[in-house]
Amino acid sequence: MRIKVINPNTSEEMTASIGAIAQCHVAPTTEVVTVCPQKGPVSIESFYDEYLAIPQVLAEVMRDEPQFDAFVLACWGDPGIEAVREITTKPVVGIAEASMYAANAIAPRWSVITTLRRSYHMVEAIVQRTGLGDRCASIRCVDLPVLACEEDPSAIIEGLSQMGLLALKEDGAEALVLGCAGMGGLDEKLSQRLGVPCVDAVAAGVRFAEMLAGMKLQTSKWLTYRSPEPKLRKGMEHPFC
Amino acid sequence: MRIKVINPNTSEEMTASIGAIAQCHVAPTTEVVTVCPQKGPVSIESFYDEYLAIPQVLAEVMRDEPQFDAFVLACWGDPGIEAVREITTKPVVGIAEASMYAANAIAPRWSVITTLRRSYHMVEAIVQRTGLGDRCASIRCVDLPVLACEEDPSAIIEGLSQMGLLALKEDGAEALVLGCAGMGGLDEKLSQRLGVPCVDAVAAGVRFAEMLAGMKLQTSKWLTYRSPEPKLRKGMEHPFC
Amino acid sequence: MRIKVINPNTSEEMTASIGAIAQCHVAPTTEVVTVCPQKGPVSIESFYDEYLAIPQVLAEVMRDEPQFDAFVLACWGDPGIEAVREITTKPVVGIAEASMYAANAIAPRWSVITTLRRSYHMVEAIVQRTGLGDRCASIRCVDLPVLACEEDPSAIIEGLSQMGLLALKEDGAEALVLGCAGMGGLDEKLSQRLGVPCVDAVAAGVRFAEMLAGMKLQTSKWLTYRSPEPKLRKGMEHPFC
Amino acid sequence: MRIKVINPNTSEEMTASIGAIAQCHVAPTTEVVTVCPQKGPVSIESFYDEYLAIPQVLAEVMRDEPQFDAFVLACWGDPGIEAVREITTKPVVGIAEASMYAANAIAPRWSVITTLRRSYHMVEAIVQRTGLGDRCASIRCVDLPVLACEEDPSAIIEGLSQMGLLALKEDGAEALVLGCAGMGGLDEKLSQRLGVPCVDAVAAGVRFAEMLAGMKLQTSKWLTYRSPEPKLRKGMEHPFC
Amino acid sequence: MRIKVINPNTSEEMTASIGAIAQCHVAPTTEVVTVCPQKGPVSIESFYDEYLAIPQVLAEVMRDEPQFDAFVLACWGDPGIEAVREITTKPVVGIAEASMYAANAIAPRWSVITTLRRSYHMVEAIVQRTGLGDRCASIRCVDLPVLACEEDPSAIIEGLSQMGLLALKEDGAEALVLGCAGMGGLDEKLSQRLGVPCVDAVAAGVRFAEMLAGMKLQTSKWLTYRSPEPKLRKGMEHPFC
Amino acid sequence: MRIKVINPNTSEEMTASIGAIAQCHVAPTTEVVTVCPQKGPVSIESFYDEYLAIPQVLAEVMRDEPQFDAFVLACWGDPGIEAVREITTKPVVGIAEASMYAANAIAPRWSVITTLRRSYHMVEAIVQRTGLGDRCASIRCVDLPVLACEEDPSAIIEGLSQMGLLALKEDGAEALVLGCAGMGGLDEKLSQRLGVPCVDAVAAGVRFAEMLAGMKLQTSKWLTYRSPEPKLRKGMEHPFC
Repeated sequence: MRIKVINPNTSEEMTASIGAIAQCHVAPTTEVVTVCPQKGPVSIESFYDEYLAIPQVLAEVMRDEPQFDAFVLACWGDPGIEAVREITTKPVVGIAEASMYAANAIAPRWSVITTLRRSYHMVEAIVQRTGLGDRCASIRCVDLPVLACEEDPSAIIEGLSQMGLLALKEDGAEALVLGCAGMGGLDEKLSQRLGVPCVDAVAAGVRFAEMLAGMKLQTSKWLTYRSPEPKLRKGMEHPFC
Repeated sequence: MRIKVINPNTSEEMTASIGAIAQCHVAPTTEVVTVCPQKGPVSIESFYDEYLAIPQVLAEVMRDEPQFDAFVLACWGDPGIEAVREITTKPVVGIAEASMYAANAIAPRWSVITTLRRSYHMVEAIVQRTGLGDRCASIRCVDLPVLACEEDPSAIIEGLSQMGLLALKEDGAEALVLGCAGMGGLDEKLSQRLGVPCVDAVAAGVRFAEMLAGMKLQTSKWLTYRSPEPKLRKGMEHPFC
Repeated sequence: MRIKVINPNTSEEMTASIGAIAQCHVAPTTEVVTVCPQKGPVSIESFYDEYLAIPQVLAEVMRDEPQFDAFVLACWGDPGIEAVREITTKPVVGIAEASMYAANAIAPRWSVITTLRRSYHMVEAIVQRTGLGDRCASIRCVDLPVLACEEDPSAIIEGLSQMGLLALKEDGAEALVLGCAGMGGLDEKLSQRLGVPCVDAVAAGVRFAEMLAGMKLQTSKWLTYRSPEPKLRKGMEHPFC
Repeated sequence: MRIKVINPNTSEEMTASIGAIAQCHVAPTTEVVTVCPQKGPVSIESFYDEYLAIPQVLAEVMRDEPQFDAFVLACWGDPGIEAVREITTKPVVGIAEASMYAANAIAPRWSVITTLRRSYHMVEAIVQRTGLGDRCASIRCVDLPVLACEEDPSAIIEGLSQMGLLALKEDGAEALVLGCAGMGGLDEKLSQRLGVPCVDAVAAGVRFAEMLAGMKLQTSKWLTYRSPEPKLRKGMEHPFC
Repeated sequence: MRIKVINPNTSEEMTASIGAIAQCHVAPTTEVVTVCPQKGPVSIESFYDEYLAIPQVLAEVMRDEPQFDAFVLACWGDPGIEAVREITTKPVVGIAEASMYAANAIAPRWSVITTLRRSYHMVEAIVQRTGLGDRCASIRCVDLPVLACEEDPSAIIEGLSQMGLLALKEDGAEALVLGCAGMGGLDEKLSQRLGVPCVDAVAAGVRFAEMLAGMKLQTSKWLTYRSPEPKLRKGMEHPFC
Repeated sequence: MRIKVINPNTSEEMTASIGAIAQCHVAPTTEVVTVCPQKGPVSIESFYDEYLAIPQVLAEVMRDEPQFDAFVLACWGDPGIEAVREITTKPVVGIAEASMYAANAIAPRWSVITTLRRSYHMVEAIVQRTGLGDRCASIRCVDLPVLACEEDPSAIIEGLSQMGLLALKEDGAEALVLGCAGMGGLDEKLSQRLGVPCVDAVAAGVRFAEMLAGMKLQTSKWLTYRSPEPKLRKGMEHPFC
């Protein structure tokens, strides 16, 4: 089995970290390729960043789609995931949804802890879109930028501890979801500090993709995720025309 | 007052039609400029189309933002509207939301009638995002492509009549929202046929933008719609760096 | 275009204030007539007040209905609005709904700030009825009576500032809706103090009515808002018999 | 114990029927007084009717409030119930809510069958206000006026049978609520025809009022249902001044 | 009329207390029999306890089902209530649902106060299942075990006062529901301390059962609550085979 | 890794079928043990059956809990899952939830097809409890008993085809979930017939358990799923005392 993990931002350090975690979590017979686009924002912290990144993500999928059995979007906004599902029949997993499914199975309520406060509303939109709003106890923000995950992990772990504790004590959470691909690998330390299970979203994403591909499940082409119509897309190179 | 209306697709015929309707609906003292991007899909019928179009929409806003008092996104998917709200302080109106507000004030429940069946889920996502899911009786699709609005308007009006009648008789709707910018101008004919008010989304969008700008309301910069962070956005020309 | 603005309470000072704001916000070609009933409570702060006021509001509409193109109910409870929609085909706008639509377009979440704490539940019912419960961050009360808006505006603005700040800092609001017709004209001052857009409900109501009437939209007579059945209404003078 | 049952419409036949049912359902030690206002619509079928009737209902409560232990509003719209709860400390029961509680305890989902189709939206509002929207399978209308209950009961029972069967077979209902005070006494016949329990709303209302009064429960005066503020209510005779 | 009240736990003291309250609340012509199983946990504080208790509750119902007109489950988790509804045609009342209906009629929002914090999620599940989530202001826990109700009632009343006050002041509650059968009889004292109505769940349950049985309502056998299919149930003595 | 799969009913044929599917879906290094209780109903089709089965399921978990790394409940009602989560720290997966997560990742909406019509409400309760009500398009029933899966698989596949087609054409589903453990292995055939992905719940459950255990996630013991309190459980042998 071959899984392509796409980091939607252009940070090579973060891509390497994501790749390392992904590698740890797959079966010996699974090959993981982790990439990021050449163009686009180094981190995704606004809708502006997200929308600039998505066409690059689509290009990464289309580049060598037939060579993979599943795709993972390694950003906790699952950016462009509906469009990716249109351009491939393989299963497409967002790390946000996969991490919420994992949390849902081990706790009645869980909280997502993300980076900048401004991303609160983006995270909320993902939770709603996944359909799990009633199970999400709260969204908390450490109020540090995404790249701090690479540059200052001790500040991130400190923020996660503080915000995680508030989520557990005030919001009714009983497990935590690390709401940023850059937080990969911090789950164990946080879990030890707080005494509750913490879900690494990259790990969840890769393993859930392996599960779906192992079951031979494909993205439904019944209606919504059909292949895009052939049409003129002015000034754009693309395979649907 | 100056309002910029952006048609997110690249159909010049549709842009001209949208511009004509917009012109009819503003005060004599309001200047409307209606444009479409040079690059991108000629119609938006899939998430793939939408995501390819959004960076072009953002560029259209940034091109001459200081010269306008409000922006209108003239596609019933309100594509990229959250990002547009990040890059300007002026009010930004999606024709989808404006048309739903109008319908909400004249009927207890209303239905949206859109083009292709595959867009059902995209329309539903907009209704939910706007927060009006409980007031939307149903989403019906004429199952004709967006460009049929320009090329075969009589087929569109026929489809609208049939679907509108079903919405009224079976779904509990008491008014109709024309869920495609290309349907602009068909509201009156449909209303006469069916005996219920029908909302032209382009008209609603332009007038609602005029209302917000007239009230001197600006997009909130408190948190979510703050200006995007300065950062490296590799290989991209953009004003936030 | 002629718009009738009805203040449901019998305070002549408040009616004058409402009329002044309404006048400022319409096009030069629009004529606004602002009235209040002769009978009924001087302010509406309980369900009891509201239900006593509604038959008077209905009488104000029926008095000279053919002479107007739209009606505005200038009380943030939109009192009796469904019945007004039954007795006219013109668009009928409640200032509550209009102000929420405006807020919805400039912020992901907004709060309503109203007068007495006891009105909390009445305000919540309006938000739900309009269908925007998911977008309303909170309802806050300055805990001053409605007439304080006329008699002690500085206390009101102080209360608005305090409650507005709490809404922004604790509840997730990013814009504010002034939830009482008596607060008309305080939006600009509050907006300057707090740094977020604040919506004047009377201004929103009048402009939204102008928008609907300008679009030639009428209240749907498909089912719910049909004219009341002719029938015996003992001891009552009324036009439906 | 003394219970006052108020029929909000002015039909004396219906008041007599309601009184007869109420009398059958109380304990021997309970005295029931059933009244209707002297002024107002003979039936409540529109918001217009409802709002004209409410001040008369309030007057009926205030006339001799100290002499009763509980009040029942005998119209399936629970008209003005929040205001009645403000003007008395005794328990106030709407027959709509009481009948839904009864249905809720004997079936996972139930439907309400009411009279005119135009009342659909009014009935839905009551279901939502009571908080039981998730348990209501559907609202069906026999499309006969309220007074047909007195004048043509066989047409009503026929309509109830047809609509009840549709509710059971198509909507997922497993019990039925008779959604009009005028349908009192038809529950048994309908239940025999359809083989499911049918709830007589008047019976449920009177018995539920007896239950609450027997438990010595009073309407909460903590906030929302406090006594109306003393204030000028121009041209109105009323006890709160 | 004969009502069987089943305390699902095996505490004889609590069964006696429940029986005493039940006796106080029924009509002179009603006979109440209050029992508890011989086997099972002495208190129900976890899902584990609940699931161990349910088969014993079912046996208590089946033991002499024909001799009773209604059944009451006297534990605020309404344990196994759907199954009880399958094995009898008589009305089956859970004290949780009955107490919420009572609270719903006297306050716009109410809170449930229960025993151990770990039961929060169980209580929430009941509120949701009953369909009244929108009317429940909050769930608060005194954090004392169920049996403290018998062994240390003054600690319980102290906890109820503290948590009740928080519910009223911070959560928007305007009435309180005592969320444990063991709290029976504390309603009056708590109501006096806090100045709001407090609902005794056992009293509500018994009276509501009397109401349903008095109306001759039966549990619907249309679909969900049909009698269990005859089938092999290995090693179990039971009447359905 | 060792996973214990528990079939809550006592059908040995079904247990064998479940075991065979489970075996196919795990990694070579994972050992699966599939068991069913000695006592209890041969199929679970009513709440009565479910509640009789749960204590037996709990006993199966407690029998040799330390020897396993994860538990799977192989009945599409996830019976007793909250209690199982209290009595172990290992991850506990219900096949219902796992299959819904899989469907959620490959289609915007999906339907569950189950056996008897009477189970509709039980299935709905699971969907709600998992938190995915908004993503579930419908629940359809083939109206054949559970054991028909073993005894008459061709009737089952016929029913699945018919109901699946209705779900796709009328309800908005774009993928299907086989809502009974006995339907294991029919996914491929159904998928070929209908042209949409169909999720085998047993396969999903086993693979999802492997995923959680592989991530070293444990059931949260923060509050709700703490170990049951030691206490007297009369006449019961059990490890918590």
